[in-house]
Amino acid sequence: MNTLFADRILTTQKSFIREILKVTENPLVISFAGGLPNSRFFPVKEIKDAASKVLEEDGKNVLQYSTTEGYLPLREFISKRYLEKKGLKISPDEILITNGSQQCLDLIGKTFLNKGDHVAIERPGYLGTIQAFSMFEPAFHSVPLFDDGIDTASLERTFEEHNIKMFSAVINFQNPSGITYSKQNRIELAGILRDHNSIFVEDDPYGELRFMGEDLPSVRNYLEENTILLGSFSKTVSPGLRLGWICARKEILDKMIVAKQAADLHSNYLSQRILYRYLVDNDLDEHIKKIRKAYKKQRDLMVSLIEEQFPGEIKCTKPEGGMFLWITLPENISSMELFNRAIKENVAFVPGSPFYVGGGGENTLRLNFSNSDEEKIEEGIKRLAVIIKKIIAEK
Amino acid sequence: MNTLFADRILTTQKSFIREILKVTENPLVISFAGGLPNSRFFPVKEIKDAASKVLEEDGKNVLQYSTTEGYLPLREFISKRYLEKKGLKISPDEILITNGSQQCLDLIGKTFLNKGDHVAIERPGYLGTIQAFSMFEPAFHSVPLFDDGIDTASLERTFEEHNIKMFSAVINFQNPSGITYSKQNRIELAGILRDHNSIFVEDDPYGELRFMGEDLPSVRNYLEENTILLGSFSKTVSPGLRLGWICARKEILDKMIVAKQAADLHSNYLSQRILYRYLVDNDLDEHIKKIRKAYKKQRDLMVSLIEEQFPGEIKCTKPEGGMFLWITLPENISSMELFNRAIKENVAFVPGSPFYVGGGGENTLRLNFSNSDEEKIEEGIKRLAVIIKKIIAEK
Repeated sequence: MNTLFADRILTTQKSFIREILKVTENPLVISFAGGLPNSRFFPVKEIKDAASKVLEEDGKNVLQYSTTEGYLPLREFISKRYLEKKGLKISPDEILITNGSQQCLDLIGKTFLNKGDHVAIERPGYLGTIQAFSMFEPAFHSVPLFDDGIDTASLERTFEEHNIKMFSAVINFQNPSGITYSKQNRIELAGILRDHNSIFVEDDPYGELRFMGEDLPSVRNYLEENTILLGSFSKTVSPGLRLGWICARKEILDKMIVAKQAADLHSNYLSQRILYRYLVDNDLDEHIKKIRKAYKKQRDLMVSLIEEQFPGEIKCTKPEGGMFLWITLPENISSMELFNRAIKENVAFVPGSPFYVGGGGENTLRLNFSNSDEEKIEEGIKRLAVIIKKIIAEK
Repeated sequence: MNTLFADRILTTQKSFIREILKVTENPLVISFAGGLPNSRFFPVKEIKDAASKVLEEDGKNVLQYSTTEGYLPLREFISKRYLEKKGLKISPDEILITNGSQQCLDLIGKTFLNKGDHVAIERPGYLGTIQAFSMFEPAFHSVPLFDDGIDTASLERTFEEHNIKMFSAVINFQNPSGITYSKQNRIELAGILRDHNSIFVEDDPYGELRFMGEDLPSVRNYLEENTILLGSFSKTVSPGLRLGWICARKEILDKMIVAKQAADLHSNYLSQRILYRYLVDNDLDEHIKKIRKAYKKQRDLMVSLIEEQFPGEIKCTKPEGGMFLWITLPENISSMELFNRAIKENVAFVPGSPFYVGGGGENTLRLNFSNSDEEKIEEGIKRLAVIIKKIIAEK
């Protein structure tokens, strides 16, 4: 049988996080592992009302096949919001609706990547990017992240040494690190990409979840032509709706529409219509405000508990938004060992090394703060602190 | 810019059918072009009730991320139905929920096709298969269809001459031809595939829409190990829900789950929950009976009008189910010319040549009968007959 499988699938491992998440299905486990938004904020009643309305008013169309590009009023909503919130002029014709922003990465891979093409990603990098692009068998080059964004000297060197076709980055509250690119960092990276005819994938699923600090301009401001900007409703409204989007100039988007049609004809139309109706009938900004407030509280609590209880040599990022913290243990401490001992105490997180293409990061780990209430954060961090101290004492 | 695009996307054309469908948006056009189910039968009220219930009873989970495999009770429903209707033993663990059955083809391509691999398809073949597989740059070999299925001598020769990894076919009421593989044909093709270690893709979106003749066994009966069976709710319940499925043995499905996760994490969960609730609360068989009855009436009318009004030398398939008829004009008549003249009279259909990989079929065309009421069928066929007669007279 193995002789029939494609190379790409034989070399791709099952997601390690997926395996971890199975462990965390046990309700006794305090899980900082997943990347789930807090379901407490899902607008269940409002979505239910929206569903009833669109089915009542236009049911026969809502349940029929639809266009590959996506529902035009929804694309117009996204276009208008970019202009209002970010000053970005993006026409609805430059927007394609996808099954969550994960599908954007698949379509980008299909549209740009030949086998062996050189692609730059972040170190640590988003696993979904690595998995999606792996299907097209590129050569990955990972570039380190600093606290204020990408290591531009290393990025430039990577571009000089390899014929990099694309750099993909999560610029706000990165997954897994929580790091945000500073304005200066954005300008510099745009300059590097401009000098080397290549595509920047500005992956921004968390941008709306800023709960402190100042909102920063999109990289697209500095590199309009060759930036592909990705967005998602998964973190603001609901991930179960599976709706995200790609913004790219028409020449690129036309190719992506071909790839999207080959992939699944079009995104779920019922979901698109429900979501649009929800957006029209409700105040998205007010809704997001509530999420930000709660996530900030959870993040503040987790950071302060770590500062109090974890040994001083342990580093922790201080994200200004999003859903994740990133912990760096002393060099000789393995986060995999910590994981194996923590899971016995019913606490879970994601060890960092899967986020490192080509190895590394054995002493790092990701903590999710969006999906645990305060009581669980207190108890979970307390247990982790005890185990970490024990491990350090044993070395 | 062109230097950045991947080869696969530069060599793939925009779908011709897509372009045709834009023309048919004009409400004056009588369209036999699309492949739409008749929205008259969408269970709008029932879906609305199902949506209200699942959101009311379990909204927070319904709107959250879910598993890549798909909602287990929905997979159990499909498993049970296969056993009851077709005598097929397929465990829920051998089923993966997808965004319509189009996505199955993308995942199959990802899982099996290296660039240059040899793939057999039908001539004429389903465009969605050609588009989906094209993304993985295989070498296509098309094998002619006879009235009772695939030309097995030609299929065998194709397997002898090339190292064919996969054969993909729509065995019931094929798109575009309306042809159904006879039982004998199914047994013979399974034999050929068994002799050459390879995969059979049994693509069956229309199987439930049989309105005359006897139901036939799945090819999977004769070739269990290496058959991948595809299904869809698009033609029975609603295409806007975008829900289909893949059945394959565990070793294969495990790889496809990896591909699915990379593609979009999981299928729309709200849709899965709504659909499952609809299926539990309603009688799917009764619902399908109504669709079959109406489609049969529309098919009978279209066939009889064609027999009455089209010149005798024109051939027309007589499908026992599904949504399409296939017309073969005299050799010297171009269906593209017919299309250009028909569209001026506000009648549309799909010329046959796009269904032929590597050319041919210039004198063929596809007519959809599911999505037009009887009045439109009468008027549309009348207009077509007049134009065809004129073209023949001019030659």
